[in-house]
Amino acid sequence: MPAEPRKPVEVKLLTGGQGPRPKRPQGPGRVTLVGAGPGDPELLTLKAVRALGTADVVLFDDLIGDGILDFVHRKARCLAVGKRGGRASCKQGDIEDLMVQFARAGKHVVRLKSGDPMIFGRAGEEIERLRREGIAVEVVPGITAALAMAASLGLSLTHRDHARSVRFITGHSRHGTLPDDLDWRNLADPATTLVIYMGGRTAPDLAARLVGGGLDPATPAVAVRALGRAAERHWRGPLAQLPAGVGLLGLEEPLLIAIGTALQAAGKAEDAAPIVQYFNQNIRYSG
Amino acid sequence: MPAEPRKPVEVKLLTGGQGPRPKRPQGPGRVTLVGAGPGDPELLTLKAVRALGTADVVLFDDLIGDGILDFVHRKARCLAVGKRGGRASCKQGDIEDLMVQFARAGKHVVRLKSGDPMIFGRAGEEIERLRREGIAVEVVPGITAALAMAASLGLSLTHRDHARSVRFITGHSRHGTLPDDLDWRNLADPATTLVIYMGGRTAPDLAARLVGGGLDPATPAVAVRALGRAAERHWRGPLAQLPAGVGLLGLEEPLLIAIGTALQAAGKAEDAAPIVQYFNQNIRYSG
Repeated sequence: MPAEPRKPVEVKLLTGGQGPRPKRPQGPGRVTLVGAGPGDPELLTLKAVRALGTADVVLFDDLIGDGILDFVHRKARCLAVGKRGGRASCKQGDIEDLMVQFARAGKHVVRLKSGDPMIFGRAGEEIERLRREGIAVEVVPGITAALAMAASLGLSLTHRDHARSVRFITGHSRHGTLPDDLDWRNLADPATTLVIYMGGRTAPDLAARLVGGGLDPATPAVAVRALGRAAERHWRGPLAQLPAGVGLLGLEEPLLIAIGTALQAAGKAEDAAPIVQYFNQNIRYSG
Repeated sequence: MPAEPRKPVEVKLLTGGQGPRPKRPQGPGRVTLVGAGPGDPELLTLKAVRALGTADVVLFDDLIGDGILDFVHRKARCLAVGKRGGRASCKQGDIEDLMVQFARAGKHVVRLKSGDPMIFGRAGEEIERLRREGIAVEVVPGITAALAMAASLGLSLTHRDHARSVRFITGHSRHGTLPDDLDWRNLADPATTLVIYMGGRTAPDLAARLVGGGLDPATPAVAVRALGRAAERHWRGPLAQLPAGVGLLGLEEPLLIAIGTALQAAGKAEDAAPIVQYFNQNIRYSG
């Protein structure tokens, strides 16, 4: 349909510091949980940008970068409520109290969360609290880390020659360890691509349990540091070497880990289009 | 930091029919695989909008709506290459041939795919082909259906009181049936939220196999039709009633199905903030 006319679309996005603040009737407050994606502002959705531009208050997590907060109107309040392993941070209840307090005062509160709110983000608890308080809540989805990693590496998580399923787990339970009630034989499935969120500190335990559960130690693995930001670095190698790979990437930044035969395709790509820069050129495999 | 100044950000998005076509040096062609998200144009990322605005050729799937194609420059060629169950459609090889042919002619080709390209989208095969041909390829992730469903229903897929894991499978293998090599005892895990893509036609078989694998027939289930579009409708009920629910929603539109105890939270929400409109008010449970 080369000659078919398309009607023009105007995209007006309210951005930090631009134009007058939009007028809207003073009504009851509300909360929008917004997924900020993996860190790159370009991976915000249009809906997320609009929510940021109309917020009175933004409560944001530790990993949200300046490039994303630049979309917030300059007259809005931005409050860091970050939680990060091993550091002092707001308690979950305090964050929920802040949301309730500002919404009760008639404000549009944006709760800005890394990635997608509904994947390992405790949004479930925040929504329950808001509903109990009778406060309207809307959710804007975001690009979750697993999808950003797949795009960055140029590999399908469900390549149909390799994987029939993709599965996300957290590597960091409420006790800071691997969840203690996972079925490792069940997880050690060669036909599933397994993605582990926040898995840096527990990676050695993870690798040992998967191999103990029956997964081939040669299964391809990938670890990504600072996904979606300028400092993004990749390691890749066999599952047995994952602890060493994580050691090279360091634990200062959250790590995302993926394991599965579908990741073989990433290896094949290295000889062709240079869309992936690997960090592991200097890794010496000892095993 | 209420008084902290934020520098203005200008968002310039190239949109269908607006302004002059950007000049760029005539160089080698390239392909961008772009995730269109679930259907709502507001759920496109900024990066996706920019890719659409600079494409010379857009090869789009059947489910991509006008609202999304409106972002394509009016001088670009838009070609429908949709594949849809039970209808005549382009073959995968033909789509790949088109991408190669246009890229070889120096064009910027956008391959626009529903949801996220890397989840059940055969992007793996397309990337492999392009790399074999020496054509540069980039991937722009999109909001995959599971995340859009979670946002629409206002429920976390990984509520930590209910689910330690979330898992995506396809309900439609290359033979049009459920994949025949899935481990149903493994899938019947009450602590995992299971999301089934393209699961309408195989839903009765799916429910029977999960119950046969040991999953409680009372486990909460959700089916969503036309996710992200105006015709979006939800059904929810116990797993045992899923085939009846799918029957009510019909099979004209692709269905997304989710199963797991985390979906209980959606039920609780009904009495509070009205962010979810259920379709099942007139469903009579026979079981």
